[in-house]
Amino acid sequence: MIRALSELRTVCLNERGDTVVILDQTQLPGKEVYVTLSSPEAVWDAIYKLKVRGAPAIGVAAAYGIYVCVRKIDTLDNSVFMNEFGKIKRYLASSRPTAVNLTAALDRMESVLVAHPFASVREWKELLYKEAVSIREEDAAACLRIGENGLRLLRPGMGILTHCNAGHLAVSAYGTALSPIYLGQERGYRFKVFADETRPLLQGARLTAYELRKAGVDVTLICDNMASIVMRKGWIQAVLVGCDRVASNGDVANKIGTSGLAVLAHYYGIPFYVLGPMSTIDPSCPNGDSIVIEERGAEEVTEMWYKQRMAPEEVKVYNPAFDVTPHELITAIITENGIFYKNNH
Amino acid sequence: MIRALSELRTVCLNERGDTVVILDQTQLPGKEVYVTLSSPEAVWDAIYKLKVRGAPAIGVAAAYGIYVCVRKIDTLDNSVFMNEFGKIKRYLASSRPTAVNLTAALDRMESVLVAHPFASVREWKELLYKEAVSIREEDAAACLRIGENGLRLLRPGMGILTHCNAGHLAVSAYGTALSPIYLGQERGYRFKVFADETRPLLQGARLTAYELRKAGVDVTLICDNMASIVMRKGWIQAVLVGCDRVASNGDVANKIGTSGLAVLAHYYGIPFYVLGPMSTIDPSCPNGDSIVIEERGAEEVTEMWYKQRMAPEEVKVYNPAFDVTPHELITAIITENGIFYKNNH
Repeated sequence: MIRALSELRTVCLNERGDTVVILDQTQLPGKEVYVTLSSPEAVWDAIYKLKVRGAPAIGVAAAYGIYVCVRKIDTLDNSVFMNEFGKIKRYLASSRPTAVNLTAALDRMESVLVAHPFASVREWKELLYKEAVSIREEDAAACLRIGENGLRLLRPGMGILTHCNAGHLAVSAYGTALSPIYLGQERGYRFKVFADETRPLLQGARLTAYELRKAGVDVTLICDNMASIVMRKGWIQAVLVGCDRVASNGDVANKIGTSGLAVLAHYYGIPFYVLGPMSTIDPSCPNGDSIVIEERGAEEVTEMWYKQRMAPEEVKVYNPAFDVTPHELITAIITENGIFYKNNH
Repeated sequence: MIRALSELRTVCLNERGDTVVILDQTQLPGKEVYVTLSSPEAVWDAIYKLKVRGAPAIGVAAAYGIYVCVRKIDTLDNSVFMNEFGKIKRYLASSRPTAVNLTAALDRMESVLVAHPFASVREWKELLYKEAVSIREEDAAACLRIGENGLRLLRPGMGILTHCNAGHLAVSAYGTALSPIYLGQERGYRFKVFADETRPLLQGARLTAYELRKAGVDVTLICDNMASIVMRKGWIQAVLVGCDRVASNGDVANKIGTSGLAVLAHYYGIPFYVLGPMSTIDPSCPNGDSIVIEERGAEEVTEMWYKQRMAPEEVKVYNPAFDVTPHELITAIITENGIFYKNNH
C-alpha cells in the first residue's frame, strides 16, 4: 500500500476498544485532526456533519459506533438490551438517509443479535465487536478487488475525471473510484487525474486532491463546471465515480453533480464507470425514483467556508446532497465481484 | 424600469465628466461600493479584477475609460495625441482577451479619430465623449429589444435556468440574458428562476441572485453541479445565458460552464437560448476554435473568498474563465435585431 495513505486512518477503534476514532475530514486539507466518539450523539453528529463521510466509511463508523454505545448498556436482560439497541440504531440511521451502507451496516449488526437469540448480553457484545471488525475488513478487501477489476478497463497515461471523494478517505484501503488509480500508480500507469472540486462541501478539492497528491498521483483540480471543457479538449478517457446507493435496475445515487457528468460523458463519448462494493447495491430498491435524496441546509451554499457572505441574505437555495444517474448513462458498474455492463440490465 | 435596479449604476461618468464611476462588483452582495477610475492603470485593474464585468459593461467601461484618460493628454498636436491614444488603447485591450466588446469598443473609439482626420485635438476629445455615450445608450436600447425578442419565446410561470450574470450589473438597463425575465416580471409572468452560483467567482450567487431578488423575481440559488437534477425534475423550461463572443458560425464563448449546461439542455430536451447584442458577434472569427480562452490564476479556485485554504498547497489547477458552446447545441441566438435559429447556420 502507498505509505502516505496507510498513515491516514479514516475510521478505527481506540486501543481499549471502547471509542471510535475518526479523522475529522471537515478540517482537511489544513489539519489532520482525529476525534473520538463514544456516545450516540457524537456518532450521529460526526456522520451528519461529514466529519466521516463516504458510503463505506459511514457504514464502518456506524457499526463501530453502535458497538461502542451499546457495550456500555449496563444490563443482563436481553430484552432491555435489544430495546436500547433498537433506539440507538434508529437514531443513528437518521443521520443521513441516502447512503445504503449506513442502514445496511446497522441492520447487519442487529441481525447478529437476532441470529443468536439464546446468547447472553455479554456474548452479544462480543459478537457485535466481531461483526463490526468484519464489516471493516470486508470493505477493505472489496476495495482492492474493485481496484483490480477497474484497472482492467484502463490504459497507462489515460486522463481520468473523478467527482467528490471515493478514495482512501471514503473507506478503508484504496477506496472505490480511486482504487484503480492507486493500483495503477503502484504499477507505473501515470494517469492524469482531474478532480472536480465538488460544491458545496468541496470534497474533491479538500479530500481527493489531497489524498491523490499525498500518494504522488498527477492530479489537477477543476471547478465542477469545467468538466465539459476538459472533456471537449480530449483530456479525459474515462470518468470514475463512487456510489451511495445502486437500485436494482442499475440507477445510481451518488454525490450531487454525478448525473450531469454522466450526461457530459455520454455526449462526448467517454466511458462512465461507477465503482462500489456489492453492499452498495440495494435489491429492495427498484429504481432511482425510489431513492430518498437528502437535502441539506442553505448555509452550505451561501456561507460555509467563506470570509464574507457570498449570496444575498435570505435568498432561496436548493441543496440536494445527491442525484440519481439513470442506468442508461452508465457504461459499467464495477464491484468486487466483477464488472456489470449496461446491456446486462 | 424596476426601481430597485435603476438605483444600481453599473458604469457611468461622474458629474464633471472626468472620471469613470463603477459599482465594485467584487464587493457585492455584502456592500454597494462605488469606485472612481481616472488612470489607465485603474481602468485596466478594474476590468482585470472584475470590479466591472459582463461583456457589454466592459465595453462601456473601456470607452469611458479611454476617454477620461486621453482627455488629460496635454497637447494640441494630433500625432502626439494619436500616439498616446494608441498606447492606452493597446494597454486596456490586454486586460481581458475573450470579450469582444472590449476591443470592439476601443476600436470604435479609435475610428472616431480616423474618421475626422482634420479635427483639432479639442474636437477629437469632444467626439470621443459623444462616442462613449453612444456606446452606452446603444447598449441600453439593445438590451430592451433583446428582452422583448426573448420574451416572445417564454410563457408565464416557466422555470428558467441562468448561469453567471448577464443582467443589469453586466450592462446597462435589464442586461441581456436577464432582460426577458425583468420584462416578464413587469408584466406578471411570475417566472421561477434558478441561478447557477458560477464558480469560481460566484457571479451567479453574488450578482444574479442579488439583482433578481432586489427586483422581486422568484430566484433559487443552486451550485453549478445541480443543473442536471433541476432539469431532470422538470423544473426548467428554458436556459438563458449571455455571451462574450459569438463566432460567425454561431459558436459562442461565454462563462465557463456554459457548454456543459448546453449539453445538459440538449439531453433533457430543454431550449437553450444565448442572448447578446449584435456587437458581441465577431464576423472576423470563423468558429469557436479561433476564440482565445482566458486562463486565470489558481488562487481563484483554491483560496479566493475562503477563511481557510480549501485545497492542498501547490495543487495543480486549471482555471479557464470561458468555454465555447458549439452552435449545434444552441436553440437560438437572441439579439436586438431578431432571433437567429440554429437551422439558419
